[in-house]
Amino acid sequence: MAEKKLVEAITSMEEDFAQWYTDVVKKAELIDYTSVKGCMVIKPAGYAIWELIQSQLDGLFKETGVQNVYLPMFIPESLLQKEKDHVEGFAPEVAWVTHGGLNPLQERLCVRPTSETLFCDFYKNEIHSYRDLPKVYNQWCSVVRWEKETRPFLRSREFLWQEGHTAHATAQEAEDRTVQMLNVYAKFCEEVLAMPVIKGRKTDKEKFAGAEATYTIEALMHDGKALQSGTSHNFGDGFAKAFGIQYTDKTNKLEYVHQTSWGMTTRLIGAIIMVHGDNSGLKLPPRVAPVQCAIIPIRQQQEGVLDKAYAIRDALKAAGVRVKVDDSEKSPGWKFSEQEMRGIPVRVEIGPKDIEKGVCVVARRDTGEKTEMPIDALAEKLPALLETIQNDMFEAAKAHREAHTYEATNYAQFCQTIEDKPGFVRAMWCGDQACEDKIKEETTATSRCMPFVNNDPISDKCVCCGKPAKHLVLWGKAY
Amino acid sequence: MAEKKLVEAITSMEEDFAQWYTDVVKKAELIDYTSVKGCMVIKPAGYAIWELIQSQLDGLFKETGVQNVYLPMFIPESLLQKEKDHVEGFAPEVAWVTHGGLNPLQERLCVRPTSETLFCDFYKNEIHSYRDLPKVYNQWCSVVRWEKETRPFLRSREFLWQEGHTAHATAQEAEDRTVQMLNVYAKFCEEVLAMPVIKGRKTDKEKFAGAEATYTIEALMHDGKALQSGTSHNFGDGFAKAFGIQYTDKTNKLEYVHQTSWGMTTRLIGAIIMVHGDNSGLKLPPRVAPVQCAIIPIRQQQEGVLDKAYAIRDALKAAGVRVKVDDSEKSPGWKFSEQEMRGIPVRVEIGPKDIEKGVCVVARRDTGEKTEMPIDALAEKLPALLETIQNDMFEAAKAHREAHTYEATNYAQFCQTIEDKPGFVRAMWCGDQACEDKIKEETTATSRCMPFVNNDPISDKCVCCGKPAKHLVLWGKAY
Repeated sequence: MAEKKLVEAITSMEEDFAQWYTDVVKKAELIDYTSVKGCMVIKPAGYAIWELIQSQLDGLFKETGVQNVYLPMFIPESLLQKEKDHVEGFAPEVAWVTHGGLNPLQERLCVRPTSETLFCDFYKNEIHSYRDLPKVYNQWCSVVRWEKETRPFLRSREFLWQEGHTAHATAQEAEDRTVQMLNVYAKFCEEVLAMPVIKGRKTDKEKFAGAEATYTIEALMHDGKALQSGTSHNFGDGFAKAFGIQYTDKTNKLEYVHQTSWGMTTRLIGAIIMVHGDNSGLKLPPRVAPVQCAIIPIRQQQEGVLDKAYAIRDALKAAGVRVKVDDSEKSPGWKFSEQEMRGIPVRVEIGPKDIEKGVCVVARRDTGEKTEMPIDALAEKLPALLETIQNDMFEAAKAHREAHTYEATNYAQFCQTIEDKPGFVRAMWCGDQACEDKIKEETTATSRCMPFVNNDPISDKCVCCGKPAKHLVLWGKAY
Repeated sequence: MAEKKLVEAITSMEEDFAQWYTDVVKKAELIDYTSVKGCMVIKPAGYAIWELIQSQLDGLFKETGVQNVYLPMFIPESLLQKEKDHVEGFAPEVAWVTHGGLNPLQERLCVRPTSETLFCDFYKNEIHSYRDLPKVYNQWCSVVRWEKETRPFLRSREFLWQEGHTAHATAQEAEDRTVQMLNVYAKFCEEVLAMPVIKGRKTDKEKFAGAEATYTIEALMHDGKALQSGTSHNFGDGFAKAFGIQYTDKTNKLEYVHQTSWGMTTRLIGAIIMVHGDNSGLKLPPRVAPVQCAIIPIRQQQEGVLDKAYAIRDALKAAGVRVKVDDSEKSPGWKFSEQEMRGIPVRVEIGPKDIEKGVCVVARRDTGEKTEMPIDALAEKLPALLETIQNDMFEAAKAHREAHTYEATNYAQFCQTIEDKPGFVRAMWCGDQACEDKIKEETTATSRCMPFVNNDPISDKCVCCGKPAKHLVLWGKAY
């Protein structure tokens, strides 16, 4: 019974992409629903991916001088209200704690939806002189936003993330840090998740509550929808003024600090699924695959087969490969399906005949390609193959994105492209929010960003109103 | 100004241990208070210790087959109430969420004080057959308990911890896992934190709400008070019956699972401070020291000094030592005090005269001992010295504990020992809770545990009531 469930075909992505996604999430055992509405359990196979994301991203942070801290999960209501735009953006979607133990609280506390206000309160006490700057702190934690509609990894009432919060002496330093972290995010997505991203700036309509500027990385999912994958915000001195965070500079003058924040979340796991997955299930890029190679013995009851499988495992482990032998009592065919569903990048098949010849079969999850390989060469060749797979997965995703990126120079063409061709649409914009509103209203597409590069004008008129264009904008329907 | 604050003498531990503790916590910059009453900020120097605890403890867990997961932070009230003893133990001290966004919730949610009920709800859906067992899951997260009095690391309304939750087919397997994890905790405390612990079983009065048996590791702080440093609980099938967690065994019979849970928290950082610290500040065992060696240049403005310091740093880094050069503009004396306050295990002093002779001075934080060492030998000798320090710190803590462990065979002697000699008192107990209550009431000491070893009777009578004794108990005043 339990065996059948996994090999049953999942919904094909062409038939129903949303159902395909849910099937993969369930059958690859990444997540489960709970009795707590809108909150999920991240199961071992899902959490192990998050651990690999966390450790590698944290390493990149630390290379740039980031230090980790931990701040409380509660924010007193009065603190949340100090910055006007910020509270307007978040108050409608926070969870409120009103009782501690058996007593009502004097002031209610919200469960952090993000921690700008707490970091400001902290920095106000920590920062006095230019010698105390910069502060480049980050925390790994969970946050809560009371969403009405939720989807595994993409939108849930509680999710895991990191939030960096920095304070600087000058506006330029803050701007540099905002862009630096966006670049770290882009590097991470492309090199670790094999997911190409477009870096750019959000329009005022789409920027973070309280920010002067929000930068974003946008990725294209397999169904042609966009996913905002990480954001980095420059707050200027807005929060500093609201919270009174000042320092004395070298000339003994009192100045406000300039601040930034930046975050990535467990939604990245949703991105991995939707960028790389196929109708056999998940496809994990080797660098975030908890198991990179599954060794599947054929006729494992025959003498010597399991021993050989374990010997290969030990050799691969010594070569730095995350490897396991599937020595369960299921059939090899079932094990193949399971390995594919779970997205393990490489499968090694080894049976009595192979052992006689000193070879094994190596199957790639990304292309399905099978090669015979001498057993003795595995420890040398597999690490290189994993690198090849990592690069090929990135190139495949990039090719998909390029094949699904369009241009439009008038509104009819724009609407038709959005309607008929799922993907990004590059089009000019006058800078007026009315046009963004109209486009969203009439096509459900939103401005994803004003890209940093490849942003030469493709026309001199706004695609919506025809007035003089100011920016090239990347548009798309988004998760 | 800022410089002075750090070198100012802290309160001596002999004068006022509690104030000494608070001073160290503040001046070593481990923690700060916040606007959120009873909640703390863990600052970079404190969080870096937690990261070292986390990664090493997590490694030990995974060696025993533990898998990490993440469950929601909210527990619906009805779920919390399913196990009678458990809800009685925790309901008075939880924080309640009553509103999500602008609307009141239909059912209020508590912020998890611990997650037994959530894991049960999860396991109920996950476990059907003996093939699904065992489940050996753990999560790293924060929990909330609405404490009235709080102290940094030792007791706060929110704290970080790990909580392991397992489900097994048999009572024996659950018991084995409970003890196995207690052994992991003890090994971790002794080998990584250099903190000797006594393993034992809690009396019924002191066990966890809902547990059949609670095992504990107890450590002795420098002031002679006990600190419960980790606990492991065997629930038998109590939770399984309350939540209906059943599986079909190999003969197709429906059985209840047997469960355990076990946790360690950020209070371990408090333990490190109170076991090892002295009147110059923190003393970190090398294995949990974010910086193991501080290189302090003397006359750093003189040509070649800083270059030599950086060269030594690079050589030590290559040898696997966590090292930094203090090249700030403060005086060497101030830097020495700071390094001592922060508990960095080894200091390397290097000045122009040393460089001429090809030597440097190596100072141990634990003993204060200074040695001259050839610069060329550092990369080879420092890793070994760090191991020596690690072992010596353990032995020193053990000697301290042994010097402060007493025995009592009658009540007058017991009371006088508790009163006059801070430390553990070993004494016999009849097994009756009335005696525990009386001892707590009259001496404020509590039963810490019934030790697993060294538990031969030292008398045949209960130290309190004089009736026949059943157990040797370790007593002490506790944090």
